[in-house]
Amino acid sequence: MSITIDSARLWDSLMAMAAIGATPAGGCNRQALTDEDGQGRRQLALWGAELGLQLSVDRLGNMMLTRAGTDASLPVVAMGSHLDTQPTGGRFDGVLGVLAGLEVMRALHGAGIATRAPLALVNWTNEEGARFAPPMMGSGAAMGLFTEAEILGRTAIDGARFGDELARIGWQGSADPSAMQRLGAYFELHIEQGPVLERENLTIGVVTGSAAQQWYDIEVTGAEAHAGAPMQGRRDTLMAAAAMMNAAEAIVLERNAASGGGEARCSVGRILPSPGSRNVVPGKTWFSLDLREEDAPPLAALCGAVAARLAAIAAERDVDLRITPFWDFPRTPFDTALVGHVREAATARGFAHRDMATAIGHDAVYVARKLPTAMIFVPCHGGISHNEAESITQEWAAAGCQVLADAALAAAGRA
Amino acid sequence: MSITIDSARLWDSLMAMAAIGATPAGGCNRQALTDEDGQGRRQLALWGAELGLQLSVDRLGNMMLTRAGTDASLPVVAMGSHLDTQPTGGRFDGVLGVLAGLEVMRALHGAGIATRAPLALVNWTNEEGARFAPPMMGSGAAMGLFTEAEILGRTAIDGARFGDELARIGWQGSADPSAMQRLGAYFELHIEQGPVLERENLTIGVVTGSAAQQWYDIEVTGAEAHAGAPMQGRRDTLMAAAAMMNAAEAIVLERNAASGGGEARCSVGRILPSPGSRNVVPGKTWFSLDLREEDAPPLAALCGAVAARLAAIAAERDVDLRITPFWDFPRTPFDTALVGHVREAATARGFAHRDMATAIGHDAVYVARKLPTAMIFVPCHGGISHNEAESITQEWAAAGCQVLADAALAAAGRA
Repeated sequence: MSITIDSARLWDSLMAMAAIGATPAGGCNRQALTDEDGQGRRQLALWGAELGLQLSVDRLGNMMLTRAGTDASLPVVAMGSHLDTQPTGGRFDGVLGVLAGLEVMRALHGAGIATRAPLALVNWTNEEGARFAPPMMGSGAAMGLFTEAEILGRTAIDGARFGDELARIGWQGSADPSAMQRLGAYFELHIEQGPVLERENLTIGVVTGSAAQQWYDIEVTGAEAHAGAPMQGRRDTLMAAAAMMNAAEAIVLERNAASGGGEARCSVGRILPSPGSRNVVPGKTWFSLDLREEDAPPLAALCGAVAARLAAIAAERDVDLRITPFWDFPRTPFDTALVGHVREAATARGFAHRDMATAIGHDAVYVARKLPTAMIFVPCHGGISHNEAESITQEWAAAGCQVLADAALAAAGRA
Repeated sequence: MSITIDSARLWDSLMAMAAIGATPAGGCNRQALTDEDGQGRRQLALWGAELGLQLSVDRLGNMMLTRAGTDASLPVVAMGSHLDTQPTGGRFDGVLGVLAGLEVMRALHGAGIATRAPLALVNWTNEEGARFAPPMMGSGAAMGLFTEAEILGRTAIDGARFGDELARIGWQGSADPSAMQRLGAYFELHIEQGPVLERENLTIGVVTGSAAQQWYDIEVTGAEAHAGAPMQGRRDTLMAAAAMMNAAEAIVLERNAASGGGEARCSVGRILPSPGSRNVVPGKTWFSLDLREEDAPPLAALCGAVAARLAAIAAERDVDLRITPFWDFPRTPFDTALVGHVREAATARGFAHRDMATAIGHDAVYVARKLPTAMIFVPCHGGISHNEAESITQEWAAAGCQVLADAALAAAGRA
């Protein structure tokens, strides 16, 4: 009842796609709506045409390659991810999910197997958000989270307009992006972009949903002083911010140690002391704070604990503190039945696996807001991604692809 | 044998000068080589002319107003500071030293007292370095630390050239700046710009010299990671930098507590995490570090202790560390005899006082490299300076001026 995917054919396709926008350091630069993106899309369309897949492109460039099922009344079961990369990106982030879906199509084609529901392969436009922010534009807009006008009007740092660039590379289609909301199921295979699977010597991550996120603006106000002024009496906002950052980190590490699970995250990506002069004690310091937890209740508890600790540090150091929520992203659970198909496939194939949440955004996380969704993770060496050094083994790629095939077939039904 | 300065006359002059470039918030904006600087200089020259002082202006705009002594063979004893301010500066930083010197001249004039050595009043060009960096340009160049060409060629952020602006406001003279090196003694009264005197309920600070300073560039290199990646295995350079900053601060506080003196300083004015995105764990972080101690040996010990602690933190957090010296400023001791005159005057007048080093740069610190120098500090409220809220009492101003008068008279000798 099952099909067997071709590990070598999948790997060859990954390497062929990696040649488009290949960087000297062994990575890939195939940013959204560049000539290289256009070339990658044409390669995918060509491979799809060889299997008789029907290509549809929507007004935001999202590509769907469909294989008819035996029952046209059933909703489409889709697999997919994205072909675009970071400027100094790797060869697998996103690409694996698309080309593994292609390999499933090829395996079905080669074995002459039909599914009951139609099967589709999706390449979402601009998942990375590197050239045009924000990330996950194509999937987000298709799910109604952004308007088409917003997306088409976005401009890159180089001044290029999203809509113009999409037309320029020849990939602005006529399909309605919101038609994607009528898919019956969506599966996405992706590299983990973290070190957990490799460290635990596991091959498959059964992703149960996305973590909840809360992003803050933190403003610390004290008093500017000359760097020669005595230490006593200072109201140094950068030293206070440093203590706050390390305190938030410590709370997260304690929570992870206590739970044994380790799903809490704490990151500061930006900090801006003012006036920003070497010999002036900063009177104001702003920094970003990104807190994540597996679900909303533990995230709320984490945020509360961090806020209390920051307030205590502000009091100790005689500085004023303002914590302003900047953005939040709710916990998005994946579909129990589809996640079950993934877990069953991993078990049946004898792949060592575990359930895990993703604390990283993916197209699947937006898609999950509107339709039944599941994700499959495979390890990547050292947890490194968004980097030319990103690497996986052919075995990991094949294992993820086989689980994708089995789960998608279970959802679509064999005719 | 002594003279008594006029507290009200001094205060009135301070307020008159404060009206030139007065800001709505009660401060002063009389930046170097602006129209307001020119107006302040004209006011000072006018006041000097009323006393028959002889005005000399050098090619960098440094002003010297000289009162002849009875023995023209003796080197000139000078008093002075600067009239320029920060853009949102106060009414006393620098100005007090110049107008207190003027008040000494007035008191001598009024009492008909002659000195053996000539007395001079100096207004140094661009001490603040706000519009044209670096600070202490006029005194530094006069002492041979910068060339005239360097200074004249400096440009402001607005594109204005130092030499052009100096000529434009009419204050480029023909005297040789290096002639200042032939002064016999230099006294500078200044507000403390720190909270020590006020906190200890003292009126006079007898400044024994400038602190030694060492400025560093600190570079921390780890690994960029997605903010959703697990905490374990991160090589977060901003969290490491935060720990390093607080560790350096803690070492300084411990040393100050142990010595009871509290002359060590630690400041970080700038920090730059890279790539500087909210949801990316910074793979590189650069920050500035400014360490100060009363003298070279304790500074070297402090720097060594900080470097060792930073290296330990780098090892704990699996990040690489590079500490690069950026700039240093040696301990500059003031002249024992002149400092003695200041201490004796404070004692004789019954002003509560203490010896202290200045960890802040002043014209006197550059001047001390070439000729006998001393400084007098008076308190300022809350240690606040470089700020429109900068404030002192009339009594503090008068006390400092009286000590200046007595010390300068002791150095110049009464005829």
